[in-house]
Amino acid sequence: MAAALLLSPLSASAKADNATPPERTPLFNAESFMLDNGMQVVVIPNHRIPVVTHMVWYYTGGADEPRGKTGVAHLMEHMMFKGSSNVPTGEFSTRVKTLGGQDNAFTSLDFTAYFQSVPARHLETVMRMEADRMQSLLMPEDHVISERDVVIQERKQVTENNPRAHFAEHLNTAAFINHPYGRPVIGWMQEIKNINRGDLMDFHDKHYAPNNAILVVSGDITAEQLKALATEIYGAIPPKEIAQRDWTDIPVVVGDVEMHHSDPRIRQNSVMKIARAPSFRQDKTAALSLQLLETILSDGSNSRLYKSLVVDQKIASNVSMSYNGSTWEDGKIWLSATPNDGFTNKQATDALMYELNKISQNGVTDTELSEAKTRLTESAIFARDSLSGPAMIVGRALITGSSLDDVEYWAYDLNNITAQDLQNTAERYLNENNNPFVTGHLSPAIVKEEDQVQ
Amino acid sequence: MAAALLLSPLSASAKADNATPPERTPLFNAESFMLDNGMQVVVIPNHRIPVVTHMVWYYTGGADEPRGKTGVAHLMEHMMFKGSSNVPTGEFSTRVKTLGGQDNAFTSLDFTAYFQSVPARHLETVMRMEADRMQSLLMPEDHVISERDVVIQERKQVTENNPRAHFAEHLNTAAFINHPYGRPVIGWMQEIKNINRGDLMDFHDKHYAPNNAILVVSGDITAEQLKALATEIYGAIPPKEIAQRDWTDIPVVVGDVEMHHSDPRIRQNSVMKIARAPSFRQDKTAALSLQLLETILSDGSNSRLYKSLVVDQKIASNVSMSYNGSTWEDGKIWLSATPNDGFTNKQATDALMYELNKISQNGVTDTELSEAKTRLTESAIFARDSLSGPAMIVGRALITGSSLDDVEYWAYDLNNITAQDLQNTAERYLNENNNPFVTGHLSPAIVKEEDQVQ
Repeated sequence: MAAALLLSPLSASAKADNATPPERTPLFNAESFMLDNGMQVVVIPNHRIPVVTHMVWYYTGGADEPRGKTGVAHLMEHMMFKGSSNVPTGEFSTRVKTLGGQDNAFTSLDFTAYFQSVPARHLETVMRMEADRMQSLLMPEDHVISERDVVIQERKQVTENNPRAHFAEHLNTAAFINHPYGRPVIGWMQEIKNINRGDLMDFHDKHYAPNNAILVVSGDITAEQLKALATEIYGAIPPKEIAQRDWTDIPVVVGDVEMHHSDPRIRQNSVMKIARAPSFRQDKTAALSLQLLETILSDGSNSRLYKSLVVDQKIASNVSMSYNGSTWEDGKIWLSATPNDGFTNKQATDALMYELNKISQNGVTDTELSEAKTRLTESAIFARDSLSGPAMIVGRALITGSSLDDVEYWAYDLNNITAQDLQNTAERYLNENNNPFVTGHLSPAIVKEEDQVQ
Repeated sequence: MAAALLLSPLSASAKADNATPPERTPLFNAESFMLDNGMQVVVIPNHRIPVVTHMVWYYTGGADEPRGKTGVAHLMEHMMFKGSSNVPTGEFSTRVKTLGGQDNAFTSLDFTAYFQSVPARHLETVMRMEADRMQSLLMPEDHVISERDVVIQERKQVTENNPRAHFAEHLNTAAFINHPYGRPVIGWMQEIKNINRGDLMDFHDKHYAPNNAILVVSGDITAEQLKALATEIYGAIPPKEIAQRDWTDIPVVVGDVEMHHSDPRIRQNSVMKIARAPSFRQDKTAALSLQLLETILSDGSNSRLYKSLVVDQKIASNVSMSYNGSTWEDGKIWLSATPNDGFTNKQATDALMYELNKISQNGVTDTELSEAKTRLTESAIFARDSLSGPAMIVGRALITGSSLDDVEYWAYDLNNITAQDLQNTAERYLNENNNPFVTGHLSPAIVKEEDQVQ
């Protein structure tokens, strides 16, 4: 209900007259301030229901792991639930549940984030619990070992037992050579196995501090209320000296990489292609253009790729282009296609690349552009109206180097993107002659008799 | 002359009766002892001419570089010639030349080595100079900058201007993912450019110490003489706490990697394949077998590959298999072929792999094996009789984790390798189903008109 009301003005203006951009109105009406210890605080008031989402985003993730210690950031996230000075081991999530709330956490190569959604009157309680584990962790040795086993099982299930995911990990490594983004967030299996308590304590010591984090609270709270609470609870935690992240540069790429993987668990041939592209922080115009291109090329059954490859030519049963630019360093473009029986990966890829090249050469139509803008704006407004959506969107943007204005005026900026921007961006980043793609071919493997389980 | 005399007994026995191995006699008669500060000293006496080769091998190289600082170990090697407490900037090589000697240095991912060949009476002088730069370097800021420029030019010439070398760098990275061996010794261009004086000082502080080095002296010197000199000169240098090297493991490889590179500077299609294989330290039997396989497959116009692909089938103008196992971690196998006009890379590769598979399946003949043993043994004996050869061979073996016995009895051990060892090794390491190869295709690029310089 509320969603429909909220999106009307913006989408209407976008549809009615593309030449007249919508007013430059903020999307979230968020407010940001700094505590004396260097912790950034963002509040996104929304008083519809008496609930808040409380998130702490740390500027630390897989990219900060020392050589040979991939997986530490993610296992660290697990250990944050295993007890701190005033919250006994295993009690964290139980307490949140008792408060009528829910909690979770996630790790990426750039960041680690913890969140709880609770009735507004319990905000102070979860803040105190979160502040507690920011300062001091128990990290019981036996739980380090058991959680490490949990992560090993998680990796087996999500990666080792999934040939597509396992293969994609290697494609990613080939696209990000000499760069932390070339590693899997969960860690390489053999390195997860070697993580010890000392590695985790060291990681917490180095990266968990108020001045290396952003607090984002959305929901039934005012800036005044949050300021008082945050100052009292997080403001009491002393800052730490935080070492600058040592990003490494990807060398000039020489040669195109093509990888092949056959596995008996694979049922059909398919092809994936990945390439780097600017993140929002690096190039906002390119990032917004890539979001629009993703919509035009790949969103739904009227999208260019689906219509051409699946409906008209019947070359593929599946085709997609996606873009992720919410990263500190380079973002990523993913292409994939599953050819129909009788067609090869090469035919499907050629047809896919042909559609991308058509945009580099001829651009998109005004209708396509304005419809893509409307669709994207609608989804943002829909997210705005969800419970945890705003804290997620704002937190992720800030922690990857975008400004609050970038988030607030995203719809406005999106509307200012032109068909020429899309064409330029397609030519620069979707054309293999200008942007190297790593190509992966997955195919079924015939199981030899001696390998079969009887 | 001397060479011919020396190799007669061994090669004769190998040829005469393959069932009777040669006596277990040491190759170099080297002697090893330790100084109190932990520096290993090896002496290889040879009194033919009054000359010595003096080498210091450090257990440090590209593998020890911090993240984002590739190239430091190699630039460090350059800076060692730029002055220390008692040797003014630029004087080192001049002084060696004045003594009637010659000097040089080289860096690998595993080690860095410095050597001088001088009249025996000047050994003490070069030892004092070498000890001086082990302890204290001037590292003048302006020379850091000018040497960095020298290295940048070196990299341009050796790598950037050589498409084959530039491409090979990427193949190597693909074969050694998540491992220091995946980096170029000289460093990635963008990282060389960022090396500063502090990085170099830090690297010298951490890795240059007597207990992290091996002294090897060959030539006209006795163990007694060397012991006295080494104790006085190197023994006076205090040891340092040396951090253990943080080797990282290569993850389980998923998928075969194929890379393509076209460049207008390339004249002909060619294909290269690389794979990992055990080093001597890791598996002596496999390493010795691979040395023999290299000889049988690829040494000269009677070798299997040349005979089959170049002479008989006329598929390729060039074909080779080579193996390097003188590394601490995994060694490497290189295959390459240049197809003749009218043949594709695939045809050349298929023919090449067919020859390798023939060995996995049918092994080698007794004649091939015994001839390969003779040929390798002869070349070792030839090296033994050269001036700097023995110090090079012994130093490189020890610094990559082999024992002195491994070097001394290399010919004896080689003679004990059987045809079955070769077959097993070929099946394990030359068969693509058991050992993943990274394949690279180089091809000429047609220069577009607008790109041509008029």
